[in-house]
Amino acid sequence: MARIGYFGPQGTFTEQAVRQLADPETDEFVPYPTTPAVVAAVRAGEVDRGCVPVENSVEGAVPATMDALALGDPVVAVAEYVLPVHFTLLAREGTSLDDIRTVASHPHGLAQVRDWLETNLPKATAIATSSTSAAAAEVLAGQFDAAVSAPVAVLHYPLNELVKGLGDVKDAKTRFLLVAKPGALPAPTGTDRTSLVAVTPNEVGALSNVLHELALREINLTRLEARPTKELFGTYRFYLDVEGHIAEQRIGDALAALHRRCIEVRFLGSYPRTDNEPTAVKSPTTDADFDAAAEWLAAIRRGESA
Amino acid sequence: MARIGYFGPQGTFTEQAVRQLADPETDEFVPYPTTPAVVAAVRAGEVDRGCVPVENSVEGAVPATMDALALGDPVVAVAEYVLPVHFTLLAREGTSLDDIRTVASHPHGLAQVRDWLETNLPKATAIATSSTSAAAAEVLAGQFDAAVSAPVAVLHYPLNELVKGLGDVKDAKTRFLLVAKPGALPAPTGTDRTSLVAVTPNEVGALSNVLHELALREINLTRLEARPTKELFGTYRFYLDVEGHIAEQRIGDALAALHRRCIEVRFLGSYPRTDNEPTAVKSPTTDADFDAAAEWLAAIRRGESA
Repeated sequence: MARIGYFGPQGTFTEQAVRQLADPETDEFVPYPTTPAVVAAVRAGEVDRGCVPVENSVEGAVPATMDALALGDPVVAVAEYVLPVHFTLLAREGTSLDDIRTVASHPHGLAQVRDWLETNLPKATAIATSSTSAAAAEVLAGQFDAAVSAPVAVLHYPLNELVKGLGDVKDAKTRFLLVAKPGALPAPTGTDRTSLVAVTPNEVGALSNVLHELALREINLTRLEARPTKELFGTYRFYLDVEGHIAEQRIGDALAALHRRCIEVRFLGSYPRTDNEPTAVKSPTTDADFDAAAEWLAAIRRGESA
Repeated sequence: MARIGYFGPQGTFTEQAVRQLADPETDEFVPYPTTPAVVAAVRAGEVDRGCVPVENSVEGAVPATMDALALGDPVVAVAEYVLPVHFTLLAREGTSLDDIRTVASHPHGLAQVRDWLETNLPKATAIATSSTSAAAAEVLAGQFDAAVSAPVAVLHYPLNELVKGLGDVKDAKTRFLLVAKPGALPAPTGTDRTSLVAVTPNEVGALSNVLHELALREINLTRLEARPTKELFGTYRFYLDVEGHIAEQRIGDALAALHRRCIEVRFLGSYPRTDNEPTAVKSPTTDADFDAAAEWLAAIRRGESA
C-alpha cells in the first residue's frame, strides 16, 4: 500500500487520473488543494507519490505544475497517463434541463463547455467555483441547480448524470504525471519518455544548440514548452520531453552534453509512455554503436589501435 | 480615419490596448465577439486593422488568436502593444466592500484575482460572465453586486471604482498585435520584431534545423510557442518571434532558408517593439557583410575574381 497525493479535492479530473496511475483497492489517495502542494508533499515525504496535470491539448501547459517541478528540491516522474476530458452535467434527483437556472463549475470547466451552455442552457447563470467537484458538492447542498464536473464526481456526490460527454472541443486530453522523490528509475521498456528542464544562457543560438545536441543523437522531441521566468518578460525556462530512457546511451550522452551547455539541466524522469508507441532507435545512435565507438576510442588511448 | 476591429465587447482589456495602438479621437473602434472574428473582419475588408491579444505573461499564448493568424488567408501584424494587466473592482454607487455578496467577471479574470477574492471577499459568490465588461454591465443593471473588470470599463459603465490595481500576479502583462491585410510593411526602426509560423516535417531534428538557421545568422529568438495541431496529439506548429525586420538581409536570408526547409512558413509581420530596445546587429551578419559577400560571389561568377 502506498500513499498517493493528488491535486484535489476528490471528484476532480486528477482523481480520475490517479485511479489509473495507482490502485484504488490498495493505495490511499490524499487530496491536496494545489499542484504545488502535491509536489511539496512528495518532497516532504508525506506521500510516496503525487499525481499532477502537466499539459492539456486545449489550454496548453499547466503553469503551476511546471513551476512546481522546475524549482525546489528535485522530484522525478515515474509514470504518465493521458486522460480524455469529458464533462458530466450533474443535478439533483428530479431536476430536468428545463429547471436549470444556475450552472456551477471551475472557471476552466465553464470555459470548455461555454458553447454547449449557450446553445442548451441559454438562460442559466454560470457560477464559478473553486473546483469542478466543489460545484457538485454545492449542487448536492441545494445551492445551485447543476454542476459541470468530472465523471468521477458521482462516486462522491449522489447526483443524477443529466448529460455525459460534454466538451466544446472533441478529443480534448490532459496528460498527468505521477512524481516521486529521486530513487531507482523505472526500467526501460522500449516505449519511454524522458522529461527535463533546461535553463540556457540568454544568448543567440542557446536553444538552437540544445536542440542540435538532441538531433545529432537522433532523439525525437515530443514536447517543448518555453515557460517565462517570473523575473523578466522575454526570458524562458525550457521544458523538453523526448522519446527514450536515460538508461539508453544516446539519451545519457545528450543529457551530459546539455549539462555542459546549460546553466541548469534538471532531470524530471524517464517513464513508460501511455500510448505504448515503440521508440525507433537506428544506426548510428543505438547502444551497440555507442559501445563500438567507446571501445575503438579506448583501444587508441591504450595505444593498441589507430 | 480608420476602422479598427477589436476583440470586444467594449470595456475590455483589448479596448484598453486598441486605444494605445490607434487614435480614439479620429479612428472608429468596432468590437467583435471573438479574436477569430476580428481576424476574419480584417480579411473581409470590413475593418482596416484588427487588435487581438497573443500572449499573456501568466497564462501563456492565446490559442484562439494563434490559430486565427496561422490558418486562412494571410494577415500581418503592423504594430504591437504590451499592456500591464490590472483589474478594477466596480460596484454601484453606495455599495461598500461589506455589501458584496456576488462578484462577476470572465472566468480568466476570476482566476487571476482568486487569492484576493478569497482573502478580501471570502463570502462572495464568484459569477462567470462572457467578458469582464459584461460583468460591469450586469452590475450596472443590478444583477450582481460587483465586477472585476478592465480599468477602461468605467468609460462605458458609470460605476464606482472600489479597488484598483487588482491581480494576484504582480507585473502580469498581455501582448497585443494590430493586424492588417498584407501591404506595404512598416519601415524598419532598428527596434523591430518579426513574427512567423513554421510547420516542419515530422522528423527528428526538424525544429533544431529551423533554430539553427536563425542562430547561424545571429538572430535572437524572443518567443517560441509550439501549438498542437488539432489533428494529432504530439504534432506542432511553431510560432516564432525574432528580433529584426524582414527588410534586413540577415532576416530575409534566414526566412528564405526556412522556406526551403519547412512544409510552410507564414510571415506574420515586421513591426516596432513596444520596449524600444535596439537590436544589436554585429559582424558577420550586418547588411554590409551580406552586401560584401554578395559582391564577392558575383565577381567570381562573372569570372572577374577568384
